[in-house]
Amino acid sequence: MRRIKITLAYDGTQYHGWQVQPALTTIQGTLQDVLAEIEGHPIHVEGSGRTDAGVHALAQAAAFSLDNPIPLENLQRAMNRLLPRDIRVLSAEERDAGFNPRYDARAKTYEYRIFRGPVCSPFERCYVYHYPFPLDLVRLLDAAPLFEGQHDFSVFAAADDRDAEGHSKVRTIFSSVLTRDQDRLIYRVRGSGFLKHMVRNLVGTLIEAGRGNIGDTGFPLESGATAPAKGLVLVGVEY
Amino acid sequence: MRRIKITLAYDGTQYHGWQVQPALTTIQGTLQDVLAEIEGHPIHVEGSGRTDAGVHALAQAAAFSLDNPIPLENLQRAMNRLLPRDIRVLSAEERDAGFNPRYDARAKTYEYRIFRGPVCSPFERCYVYHYPFPLDLVRLLDAAPLFEGQHDFSVFAAADDRDAEGHSKVRTIFSSVLTRDQDRLIYRVRGSGFLKHMVRNLVGTLIEAGRGNIGDTGFPLESGATAPAKGLVLVGVEY
Repeated sequence: MRRIKITLAYDGTQYHGWQVQPALTTIQGTLQDVLAEIEGHPIHVEGSGRTDAGVHALAQAAAFSLDNPIPLENLQRAMNRLLPRDIRVLSAEERDAGFNPRYDARAKTYEYRIFRGPVCSPFERCYVYHYPFPLDLVRLLDAAPLFEGQHDFSVFAAADDRDAEGHSKVRTIFSSVLTRDQDRLIYRVRGSGFLKHMVRNLVGTLIEAGRGNIGDTGFPLESGATAPAKGLVLVGVEY
Repeated sequence: MRRIKITLAYDGTQYHGWQVQPALTTIQGTLQDVLAEIEGHPIHVEGSGRTDAGVHALAQAAAFSLDNPIPLENLQRAMNRLLPRDIRVLSAEERDAGFNPRYDARAKTYEYRIFRGPVCSPFERCYVYHYPFPLDLVRLLDAAPLFEGQHDFSVFAAADDRDAEGHSKVRTIFSSVLTRDQDRLIYRVRGSGFLKHMVRNLVGTLIEAGRGNIGDTGFPLESGATAPAKGLVLVGVEY
């Protein structure tokens, strides 16, 4: 049995997130449909983690097992021929039989884009959060690095995940940086792993800090509103 | 009566082009619907020219007449509130009563993007022509400037337009330049005006030249296939 790792880019606009759901179009479901068509039997695709509905990926990682001796390049080409154009397989490689894209991931990087100008370009409408209202940029820039380090991020988890028992909410954020590029604020965070909605809640918290509603000394103990999914992109997964 | 000029950006993917057509969603039709809603009666919107279905605009120009004394900034804001997010009014300004966005235009600039890599990014899928097949880049680069100058462009007009009587097919191309940016070929053309399908046919001709099917000495006397609409964007209109 071969273990294949693929790297994927996708525009999440038209999808109900990563995870298979009955009667809804998802990234995982679409990949599994295409692989079943190529292989003639069901194939389970495992991702490095779930992305929410509307969240994008520049380089998501996933894996599946295969008996078929098809060369990797042909497999990639066959998948891209069958997949809709908003999902692309960027590369395919052989891994050890035990490779698990979720548990073997050492770090993930996400980027979140906020557009501050008065009129948002039609070409960016699905990829940025348009927030033209006043923000104290200095507070935002100061607040971003406060997330760095090892913390219990319970307060930044999705409400339905926050009180789930038995799973540690401790994560390590290696870097958490906000930069400004003309009318855009770009938040980039790299960490050992992320809870459900965590990056969107970190961004919501930064916005609250920029509105002056959250203090800028020490690790924030409350979360702002969950920022919209469309501004978020999974930049990469490290193994 | 006021004469208002607006500058528009739009993602043409979901539209059947600029011009109003019964039962189809078009840019002109959508603008007229929104202005009718604001004004309470029908308003005719005139464009600098038609764009084909699927063609985009970074800065299309259009104009309409209005009695309403509404400040320009409020008008722009009201339009953007009612318009779908894939059409944006970038600016609005007062013009003389006789302003005609089509006949007063001195020059237009279009850009056409060809993606040459093996896998096209999901985020560019609606904005580039994916052409990964072999091309002789030197022939392409040499052929692009041959369009410059004043020529009869009949052979580059749409088939249904080519033999129409009474309209001159002579246009002046001020600049016609192909550049390469990594995996992208970017063709930029600025001219006094363009016939229907003309830019897409110029690009189709460049591709034929790159395939070695059209000679590279002198103004081409035959057109290649019409290149797909989605790679084309109207960059700006000069008055």
